[in-house]
Amino acid sequence: MTLRELRELSEGMPFNKLVGIRVVRQHSDGVTIACPMSERLRNSAGVMHGGVMATLADVAMGVGLASHFDGRRPVTTTDMKINYLRPIQNGKLVARSHLLRVGKRLCVGRVDMFDAKRQLAAVAIVTYMLLE
Amino acid sequence: MTLRELRELSEGMPFNKLVGIRVVRQHSDGVTIACPMSERLRNSAGVMHGGVMATLADVAMGVGLASHFDGRRPVTTTDMKINYLRPIQNGKLVARSHLLRVGKRLCVGRVDMFDAKRQLAAVAIVTYMLLE
Amino acid sequence: MTLRELRELSEGMPFNKLVGIRVVRQHSDGVTIACPMSERLRNSAGVMHGGVMATLADVAMGVGLASHFDGRRPVTTTDMKINYLRPIQNGKLVARSHLLRVGKRLCVGRVDMFDAKRQLAAVAIVTYMLLE
Amino acid sequence: MTLRELRELSEGMPFNKLVGIRVVRQHSDGVTIACPMSERLRNSAGVMHGGVMATLADVAMGVGLASHFDGRRPVTTTDMKINYLRPIQNGKLVARSHLLRVGKRLCVGRVDMFDAKRQLAAVAIVTYMLLE
Repeated sequence: MTLRELRELSEGMPFNKLVGIRVVRQHSDGVTIACPMSERLRNSAGVMHGGVMATLADVAMGVGLASHFDGRRPVTTTDMKINYLRPIQNGKLVARSHLLRVGKRLCVGRVDMFDAKRQLAAVAIVTYMLLE
Repeated sequence: MTLRELRELSEGMPFNKLVGIRVVRQHSDGVTIACPMSERLRNSAGVMHGGVMATLADVAMGVGLASHFDGRRPVTTTDMKINYLRPIQNGKLVARSHLLRVGKRLCVGRVDMFDAKRQLAAVAIVTYMLLE
Repeated sequence: MTLRELRELSEGMPFNKLVGIRVVRQHSDGVTIACPMSERLRNSAGVMHGGVMATLADVAMGVGLASHFDGRRPVTTTDMKINYLRPIQNGKLVARSHLLRVGKRLCVGRVDMFDAKRQLAAVAIVTYMLLE
Repeated sequence: MTLRELRELSEGMPFNKLVGIRVVRQHSDGVTIACPMSERLRNSAGVMHGGVMATLADVAMGVGLASHFDGRRPVTTTDMKINYLRPIQNGKLVARSHLLRVGKRLCVGRVDMFDAKRQLAAVAIVTYMLLE
């Protein structure tokens, strides 16, 4: 899949569009996606909601797998673990997925998330299952 | 805090309102919240986006802590682990938090999530840190 | 499998025997296992090593699956998340597994761990994959 | 702390010695430790027990923090998530910790684990809390 096709795939998901996620780049082992901070993504402390960051982790891995399998394998998330390291006040959150293991059934990836100053803002490990 | 105050707190978070989360009930050890499925919450497989379910896990624990501390302690999520057990096609996702440990610094809770048939759809463990 | 057979299965694993794990009870949805504290299980702070508690989480779920499938399905752990809530100084650590979802490929369970005072000392979510 | 002092610290923990863990190298952002496979570390499938690998994840992060703080800060593990990617049949398991965030209260690290062929065998994210 080309970058353009991955973007269409991602933005074809209603929730990704609602959140404002954009696919930025393809790599040999994953993708980079980004999400600009906006008022509607805030929590009560005024920073980016933890659920938004978890959404990016999920999407970065899912789009990474679409890129890897050329969009031909249906997949579903089975689990995710995310550690929040720094709050996002403003600017863009960038998420870079690295496929660590693509097995016959399960695929595991790491997602590193960076704030506008390029500091690590969160790290996630996400597992997807390949459906038949 | 009363149920009404918890609702105002939750809906005062722009992202919670965007997702459509509603606080349903207070318990001695947590709260129940719910989120009706809607078109904009879907992923490319047509089911509820994993990011939405992660958002509910985060919110169920955060509102549970607000209830426990009567809204007096500022908190922030430090990590979350969620396992997806069943896809949500339609109906309401219900999330029930249980505060397992309220420490001096860290609070850990479990969130059980149920589909419209009352089947367990996901389970999460969420950690919050109490800020000074 | 009977309780005696589950014990033999568990103690047939060299590492379980080294750690001193004993299967205590079968339930409809899991098992209870226990491990007495001993000098060799300590870390540098003098309490039970986090690795020991993670081992119990893994075993409680594995033996729970052996009980569920009557020992007929080969399985392997794919991931585990454990939160440490209270240090174990002395006495027995008791771990109770609850199978939350037994799927065609993946099985997810929760393990609650208790100290000698019956206080929750740790909680884990463990995923196993059924091998062909 | 020197490499020798880190080794003494690690081997001073009874459980680390029981498992056979050895500190191999110090890095600017963590340490490398190793554990040779041995009969007593096996599970019923004949491969390295998941609890052993979880123990290495915990230790790699703990020793990495001792190196970072020169052994001056008491710490305790608060949570760990480990994904098992490949079974360890024989040879040495090598675990390399990377401190991702050293905060005022919480420290988060990633631990990459490799089998004898240098393939990624497991990945973990571990959180420690700094005690007063």
